[in-house]
Amino acid sequence: MSSTFGEIFRIHTYGESHGGGVGVIIDGCPPSIPVSLENIQHELDRRRPGQSDIVTPRKEADTAEVLSGLHDGLTLGTPISIAVKNTDQRPGAYDEMAVKYRPSHADYTYDAKYGIRAPSGGGRASARETIGRVAAAAVGKQVLNAISPGIEVIAWVSTIQHIHANVDPATITSEQVESNIVRTGDPNVVETMINHIKKIRSDGNSVGGIIECVIRNCPPGLGEPIFDKLEAELAKAMLSIPATKGFEIGSGFQGTLLTGKEHNDPFEMRDGKVRTTTNHSGGVQGGISNGENIIFRVAFKPTATIISEQDTVTDKGETTKLMGKGRHDACVLPRAVPIVEAMATLVLTDHLLRQRATRPV
Amino acid sequence: MSSTFGEIFRIHTYGESHGGGVGVIIDGCPPSIPVSLENIQHELDRRRPGQSDIVTPRKEADTAEVLSGLHDGLTLGTPISIAVKNTDQRPGAYDEMAVKYRPSHADYTYDAKYGIRAPSGGGRASARETIGRVAAAAVGKQVLNAISPGIEVIAWVSTIQHIHANVDPATITSEQVESNIVRTGDPNVVETMINHIKKIRSDGNSVGGIIECVIRNCPPGLGEPIFDKLEAELAKAMLSIPATKGFEIGSGFQGTLLTGKEHNDPFEMRDGKVRTTTNHSGGVQGGISNGENIIFRVAFKPTATIISEQDTVTDKGETTKLMGKGRHDACVLPRAVPIVEAMATLVLTDHLLRQRATRPV
Amino acid sequence: MSSTFGEIFRIHTYGESHGGGVGVIIDGCPPSIPVSLENIQHELDRRRPGQSDIVTPRKEADTAEVLSGLHDGLTLGTPISIAVKNTDQRPGAYDEMAVKYRPSHADYTYDAKYGIRAPSGGGRASARETIGRVAAAAVGKQVLNAISPGIEVIAWVSTIQHIHANVDPATITSEQVESNIVRTGDPNVVETMINHIKKIRSDGNSVGGIIECVIRNCPPGLGEPIFDKLEAELAKAMLSIPATKGFEIGSGFQGTLLTGKEHNDPFEMRDGKVRTTTNHSGGVQGGISNGENIIFRVAFKPTATIISEQDTVTDKGETTKLMGKGRHDACVLPRAVPIVEAMATLVLTDHLLRQRATRPV
Amino acid sequence: MSSTFGEIFRIHTYGESHGGGVGVIIDGCPPSIPVSLENIQHELDRRRPGQSDIVTPRKEADTAEVLSGLHDGLTLGTPISIAVKNTDQRPGAYDEMAVKYRPSHADYTYDAKYGIRAPSGGGRASARETIGRVAAAAVGKQVLNAISPGIEVIAWVSTIQHIHANVDPATITSEQVESNIVRTGDPNVVETMINHIKKIRSDGNSVGGIIECVIRNCPPGLGEPIFDKLEAELAKAMLSIPATKGFEIGSGFQGTLLTGKEHNDPFEMRDGKVRTTTNHSGGVQGGISNGENIIFRVAFKPTATIISEQDTVTDKGETTKLMGKGRHDACVLPRAVPIVEAMATLVLTDHLLRQRATRPV
Repeated sequence: MSSTFGEIFRIHTYGESHGGGVGVIIDGCPPSIPVSLENIQHELDRRRPGQSDIVTPRKEADTAEVLSGLHDGLTLGTPISIAVKNTDQRPGAYDEMAVKYRPSHADYTYDAKYGIRAPSGGGRASARETIGRVAAAAVGKQVLNAISPGIEVIAWVSTIQHIHANVDPATITSEQVESNIVRTGDPNVVETMINHIKKIRSDGNSVGGIIECVIRNCPPGLGEPIFDKLEAELAKAMLSIPATKGFEIGSGFQGTLLTGKEHNDPFEMRDGKVRTTTNHSGGVQGGISNGENIIFRVAFKPTATIISEQDTVTDKGETTKLMGKGRHDACVLPRAVPIVEAMATLVLTDHLLRQRATRPV
Repeated sequence: MSSTFGEIFRIHTYGESHGGGVGVIIDGCPPSIPVSLENIQHELDRRRPGQSDIVTPRKEADTAEVLSGLHDGLTLGTPISIAVKNTDQRPGAYDEMAVKYRPSHADYTYDAKYGIRAPSGGGRASARETIGRVAAAAVGKQVLNAISPGIEVIAWVSTIQHIHANVDPATITSEQVESNIVRTGDPNVVETMINHIKKIRSDGNSVGGIIECVIRNCPPGLGEPIFDKLEAELAKAMLSIPATKGFEIGSGFQGTLLTGKEHNDPFEMRDGKVRTTTNHSGGVQGGISNGENIIFRVAFKPTATIISEQDTVTDKGETTKLMGKGRHDACVLPRAVPIVEAMATLVLTDHLLRQRATRPV
Repeated sequence: MSSTFGEIFRIHTYGESHGGGVGVIIDGCPPSIPVSLENIQHELDRRRPGQSDIVTPRKEADTAEVLSGLHDGLTLGTPISIAVKNTDQRPGAYDEMAVKYRPSHADYTYDAKYGIRAPSGGGRASARETIGRVAAAAVGKQVLNAISPGIEVIAWVSTIQHIHANVDPATITSEQVESNIVRTGDPNVVETMINHIKKIRSDGNSVGGIIECVIRNCPPGLGEPIFDKLEAELAKAMLSIPATKGFEIGSGFQGTLLTGKEHNDPFEMRDGKVRTTTNHSGGVQGGISNGENIIFRVAFKPTATIISEQDTVTDKGETTKLMGKGRHDACVLPRAVPIVEAMATLVLTDHLLRQRATRPV
Repeated sequence: MSSTFGEIFRIHTYGESHGGGVGVIIDGCPPSIPVSLENIQHELDRRRPGQSDIVTPRKEADTAEVLSGLHDGLTLGTPISIAVKNTDQRPGAYDEMAVKYRPSHADYTYDAKYGIRAPSGGGRASARETIGRVAAAAVGKQVLNAISPGIEVIAWVSTIQHIHANVDPATITSEQVESNIVRTGDPNVVETMINHIKKIRSDGNSVGGIIECVIRNCPPGLGEPIFDKLEAELAKAMLSIPATKGFEIGSGFQGTLLTGKEHNDPFEMRDGKVRTTTNHSGGVQGGISNGENIIFRVAFKPTATIISEQDTVTDKGETTKLMGKGRHDACVLPRAVPIVEAMATLVLTDHLLRQRATRPV
């Protein structure tokens, strides 16, 4: 259903932006996996507001509390419940938004779907909802470490509007990505990207861009051949992140310009393993990982909240104007990097366990 | 699991390219929906081989047989089983492929996953598997007609390699798409596209391209807000089609070049309804349909099977050469148009029923 | 998976007896249903320890907190998270049990399954886990009230060991059941049952019995015909309650002594409706409700925890003796009545929504 | 959903009693398991009509055809589709039943649920539907053999109305059960049971009874602790079989007459393993197998079809009489024995794979 993701390593999230809090239950986690609150809090800190001067200045501590499923630093095999309280609530700040539909937000569609809507902030459509995903993926990461050591999931900001980063997926490190507040992997564009975001913000405007992600050392054989192809699961995972508009893997849309002779990845033997000499496939063939690097890109639209006057209507059907306010990200990409990694990690963890069920290695 | 798609209108497919046959069970179909064998066969004929001189000349009748769930032209509410026998089997044609991994095919990854593989043809990875999807969607189309009359799902070939069609999603008709064997919606490029595909085929090569799809008259409120966002479900559905490498909705990857001021879709009242003046969102906001046209694009890589010699390895790890043969599509896009429509139809049908469960209209 | 129940009205529980707390997420709840904290707390109070002098004297307030999914007393259609903190923790009381397997408890089987176990109390196998079920069913009850007014779910203690209550399922009321601490529906056996439980407790022993439940005014048409038959779902729901050993519906095991001529329920027209003149079927035919009273019985074994010395082994495989201690119920049935009602309510709510998806009424 | 059973080893059935045929798809079967058509046909022959002179004389060959998922006697890991054509169709024999509701059949409830109904025979409610379950379990049995050699699932007729068989679950063999056409395990009651069934049939009447089943050599650790307890899954599986009214495990309903001191199963070490000295638990504690014999009983009501005149109503609401005819079982239990074994096998296979996913052994 709506708030559940995964078949075996299965997570359930809850929570509105305003109200008691947000959180997640992880069901199906293997027992005896070492997981600490530090593992979880570290990932949450990477996505939280207020971490640098190019993201929203909201002060939300986003402190995780583990309510169940762990004992003495080990998973029990039972559901792991992680909760984060809502603290920085300013319901008043949203009074106008309670009646005026914010353009390109989910206000209108929630009303169309449910006939009722949380009146403050984005409710369930808030990016705060992703806290549960990131917390769950922090646990997933420990499962991957334990079962298939060496798997790495690294994402970075590949473009901000027209500014491109030049990054080699084969060698990029998490340290390189984390070394700059815009979370790109190319030191040459860090300043340009930061300045562009600041400029756009000072204009009351917003920008989007592309996040690229590589999964290295993924064992061959993950992914299910028909509907739950690994790339299909990744596509769904990525398009479930707020503000995303596109997904491509390997050669992607550009690959449609090549011919088959150019695009096919010849096989060869390397270090006693079946490998490909090129990687237009992006690490997945027939929906199943082939042992090469899995490389994909995700398009993020410019943030819908802008500090400018816009035409809109009220929930009563009256034409009106809305002036955005509040403390928002002019560009979500730096904070979206850990979310992309989280969703990829959840897909991998689930498929690793699915593969174990039918053919343990 | 692997061969199941949907939550309420739920399909299960089966079948290898060689063996008894392929088929589908549809579970959760509402009762008393008019469905005929003609409805089903019509859609199967649009995807079958041998239908024109730019697709594979294989002669497969792909005749559907309905084994259960229908009586006197009405659904019973019970599982509908549709089977298509395999007829044009030439196992011998694949002897070489049983040991040599075809580049950019699923031969190697199936071996990596299962440790065993159907030795003839593509097995479960064959495009023949999509027969079940198309048959199920033919039923889904009738459900949509009955429950939400007016919904239209129309796909067309938007590009073949570098050749672009100029098509207006708001007005394109199924008749226009079906009027030409390449299934594009722009009469000015039909000949160019056909000639290009023939030329590529005569070179023993292959090409890919982009299929675009519009869903018109979709009621607002479909799609679930978190993981099962309508665009996430469509993304998964499309990336589950063989040979796809990318998906984008609305402004897609190009939308990352716009600012928020340019990209946001202002609301207005039109004919008493909440509408947007632009549609960069592509008909979905916050994962839920907003009543505008849902527009998305799917990237197809060039066909992996080419009639040229390629480097590869055997399942014993020996370096070798493989010369493609057999009767294959040099370009899958014309036959993939009904498959894109089918997967979109399955997503819509399922979400329409999901919405009815919690809030019937 | 393990901690998820339901297809559309779907609940996920978490929590060990010792640790942060226990709780539940309800996903798939329709929007705009009136639900109050009082609704939830009322049901929790019926199952909590310390409510009378024949149940465990543990003092757990079991105060529910709603973290999400409600606004101004109405459901939002989003996940409803309900948490109950653990307060009365005495980990020390369980030191011996951390190494000695309590007979007929889940200590050994958890170790066999997971290789690790929460060292205090019953962990996830504690009856405390049922708090989430009861809280979720309190919401389900409001959904039933709103969608199908008049449905009643009433359970009562039918037997305590050899003491039988004489109750008419057609007329028994909740008030009658709640009027006595043993929660039976027959005033003539209340004292006998209470005295028997007290006697057994003073012997350091325990007893079980049978809980009977009636669902009145259930609309015909609920239940799915094959695997998810209404009686199959109820059977699973009841056997998922700790300490249960049997389930029967309608004529049950006694019905095997009748012939078909005696057992069949003839149809007649009554008040313009199709009705049966007898009800050996117990309100379900072919897995689907027929509009008659749904009547079933659930067998509960005597409580495993007894205040007597028992033979057992340690988790190291050493033979030993265990002397039960702690504050336990000598008979769980009075507190299990609301749990039986809760599980029945969850089954009904889910199937009502499932029916709406394919055929709204 | 309705026609799906299992989480990982997952089956989907289809088919009405009249129409093209019935069948099953098995998804999630591990690869490289040896399965032959003989394995499948053998089990189907045990449940088919016409096998002896105490069951319905209908002549249905029930010949299985495998359409996919097998190659050279090994599973491919892909969906296995097994189909059985309907052959002995006499739609005319059911004309009267198309409008008159047969008492204690599913005719009325299907109409109430769907508003439409297959007009011939039982439609989807026919016992013919169980063919798919038995065929799938024949495959499941091979999976059990391969992964956990030694597991045995043996069911037998324990009672026919008032006639009791005396059988030791620890030693009963399949050969003993199959040695007599009534499929009981006690040679002393075979003749009595057969004569009673023949007598009842000659009276135009019918009888029910109890089937008992033992699972021997089940490894400890199977079953999920909360909702998917092993006994809860078995209960659902058994109550999903047509004509069942009750389920009990271990001490069952009789166990409610014991005290805790009598009922608890002390642990001891035996052959280096943790074992219990008694087995009132019936092989499951806390929802998880403990390595002892799993023993359960299933109540079957007398067959609803009797060759006697009964009061009923038509689908137009008119009072009428119905005289049963056709070729039916006066007692379903002999043919239900393989169905009970099949459902138990499906539960075990699924839980064995579920356990492998989180903790492979």
